[in-house]
Amino acid sequence: MAFEYLSNMPLEEALRGYLQRLEDCGRAPVVELVTVGQALGRVTAEPLYAALSAPHYHACAMDGIALAASKTFGATATTPVVVSPDDYVVVDTGDPLPEGCDAVVMIEDVVYAAEGDERRLGSCPVTLYASIAPWGNVRQIGEDICAGEMLLTSNTVVGPAAMGAMLAAGVQEVPVIARPKVGIIPTGDEVVAPSANPRPGDVMEFNSTIFSGMVRQWGAQPVVYPIVKDEPDLVCTALQRAVDECDIVLLNAGSSAGRDDYSAQAVGKVGEVFCHGIAIKPGKPAILGNAGPVAIVGVPGYPVSGIIVVESIVKPIIEQLMGCAMQQGETLEATLARPCTSSLKYEEFVRVRLGMVQGRAVATPLSRGAGVVTSFVKADGILNVPQNSEGYEAGQSVRVNLLRPRAEIENSLVVIGSHDP
Amino acid sequence: MAFEYLSNMPLEEALRGYLQRLEDCGRAPVVELVTVGQALGRVTAEPLYAALSAPHYHACAMDGIALAASKTFGATATTPVVVSPDDYVVVDTGDPLPEGCDAVVMIEDVVYAAEGDERRLGSCPVTLYASIAPWGNVRQIGEDICAGEMLLTSNTVVGPAAMGAMLAAGVQEVPVIARPKVGIIPTGDEVVAPSANPRPGDVMEFNSTIFSGMVRQWGAQPVVYPIVKDEPDLVCTALQRAVDECDIVLLNAGSSAGRDDYSAQAVGKVGEVFCHGIAIKPGKPAILGNAGPVAIVGVPGYPVSGIIVVESIVKPIIEQLMGCAMQQGETLEATLARPCTSSLKYEEFVRVRLGMVQGRAVATPLSRGAGVVTSFVKADGILNVPQNSEGYEAGQSVRVNLLRPRAEIENSLVVIGSHDP
Repeated sequence: MAFEYLSNMPLEEALRGYLQRLEDCGRAPVVELVTVGQALGRVTAEPLYAALSAPHYHACAMDGIALAASKTFGATATTPVVVSPDDYVVVDTGDPLPEGCDAVVMIEDVVYAAEGDERRLGSCPVTLYASIAPWGNVRQIGEDICAGEMLLTSNTVVGPAAMGAMLAAGVQEVPVIARPKVGIIPTGDEVVAPSANPRPGDVMEFNSTIFSGMVRQWGAQPVVYPIVKDEPDLVCTALQRAVDECDIVLLNAGSSAGRDDYSAQAVGKVGEVFCHGIAIKPGKPAILGNAGPVAIVGVPGYPVSGIIVVESIVKPIIEQLMGCAMQQGETLEATLARPCTSSLKYEEFVRVRLGMVQGRAVATPLSRGAGVVTSFVKADGILNVPQNSEGYEAGQSVRVNLLRPRAEIENSLVVIGSHDP
Repeated sequence: MAFEYLSNMPLEEALRGYLQRLEDCGRAPVVELVTVGQALGRVTAEPLYAALSAPHYHACAMDGIALAASKTFGATATTPVVVSPDDYVVVDTGDPLPEGCDAVVMIEDVVYAAEGDERRLGSCPVTLYASIAPWGNVRQIGEDICAGEMLLTSNTVVGPAAMGAMLAAGVQEVPVIARPKVGIIPTGDEVVAPSANPRPGDVMEFNSTIFSGMVRQWGAQPVVYPIVKDEPDLVCTALQRAVDECDIVLLNAGSSAGRDDYSAQAVGKVGEVFCHGIAIKPGKPAILGNAGPVAIVGVPGYPVSGIIVVESIVKPIIEQLMGCAMQQGETLEATLARPCTSSLKYEEFVRVRLGMVQGRAVATPLSRGAGVVTSFVKADGILNVPQNSEGYEAGQSVRVNLLRPRAEIENSLVVIGSHDP
């Protein structure tokens, strides 16, 4: 196979065009009904309206006695009022307000007007030293929710309180956006399932585990397919199957232009290639393609490149499908501890460690090897160096996208220097 | 039953003493082994070490030819070197470095020194116009991970990249802290399962759904028990069963001092009451108790009170059990749109809406009714008014704990005023 040069499309341009193409191909969120109990963290597909008011009846808001408020009018510390047992009803919090009553007096404010055996709430008269206004200590119908009221707008992430509000409003099922299915196809003759005893040349397949974790965190559902050998027909067959079953397909490795890299050909056969080669580093050889509304992304084989491509390309596709933006990470202003040079050709994603030195955040660039997956484990943040920039000098102030909570970083010690492993 | 006054212990004091008591009773995290694929979001129970180096063999880092670097020494644009097919091996990225080779020349830098049919990589000589240093384009053993190296410290939340690093290092299983089991017991004669057609007086039981969602978000595992009638024996039996099966038990409702509130008695029978009544509003009648190392929390019945108690008391217990602090929410400085008065007796948690007016965040207090669960759905943040404070004036600057991402709030319109539902 002849060596083919890849394109070098800027990330933002590639992504905008690609998302537009997917939309033009009729890509749209799928809606499914789930019970309220299953709705935690899901995204509403439609506005949701209350079927019932809450409370759905006039409810006593206190333990005590219910009565007509007018029976208490004029009661004060010096002019107490005695209420006969026929004129009040003993109630607990949550009880329906009894017929003929419009207020509840708290049990703490009720004084028994009888002694000995007679002294029994419900059958003895009681003395009140204060009046109560109509509807005092009553939760009226609809105090919390009015039937017909909009409870949640569409494209809202359902939290615990919203689940409670739905049940209170008589809603038992919620239309939510289906979790996009993300098919992940590992390829490569040398690729084997992870093991504790690999032979030399065995490349252990852990990218699918990383990508599964990432898309799961964004609310999508990963589907990992078996490892496919580097044979064009086998790759095409596997790709066609995944396209039939999923919303997004990641074809992992074989996205470069080497001897056995059939991915771009396979994407072109099963669908169309929109762009092969993006101006990012790591991650340049990514392939963006589609088969109708199904996105096909050729993800480079090196784990760090793969993570960057999945984060930069696949996350926005999932957001488009879910109809809502994921929470953006925080950023932090930091001083570079070492120079960080970068090629003009690419937008570069540099993993950095962060820590506080004299009240100021300091960023130290980590190993930039595309195979160094631990750089992502050790990293506290990502420094984006734009295309057409040569990078930054030591001591320069830069803005870092955080991978960890800011509080954790503010408690970090900085230790840099040489080491002898 | 006689009316019993509750204590009014400040939250911080109650919590500190309570967590200490649980620790003194032998409460400790439980460890379990899970596969790496199941470890997403779990917390490591021990430091984790690499079983293998990664790469676990000297690996070609490029598609091209492998050779002894010394064969290329002296090659320049004007003094090219010809390498015979016996002295190089065609390799792909990831191949083990062949015997006798110590460097890889990229395929793009290889020029065939033959024509026509002879021109076949692997069998024809090649011309090189640059030398390569030993170990050039080779990923040496341990470039990413050295066997024996610490991959993850204990009490670390496992993310996608860490899962990849573990597999690369030959680690297949991870000791993680078991998800604490949180038993939730709904009680009350009037309490029924949520329905679309409740009768007057039916109090729909949705608190267990709210609390389940909350503890699930914190990494614990909810176990919801059937609704128990307000009978002391039944409550004790249910509580004993949950104590036997769970790490934390929430006894919902019946935590006040009304007619049918048997919770404190039941906690005292099955275990011990540490404190009944905390100086918070809403949430005052909470009960903190324990049966040995099992925490028993009596949670008030009104949903808003319940949410505050679960957030203030149960979350720290889960953090203690998981050995790591949850991510703290962000805070935001805002101007109060309306006065917010508060009792001196309690630390008060006021739900507020937030939005931007002329570049400045404005906080509007929402309904403070303890039954108004929608106040939590509508709220963007919580304003804590400390004990011994009378509250804040309109226009005063306050710090709000955010319930939503800051970016969402910065895009919010503020509309306040009267309404006519």
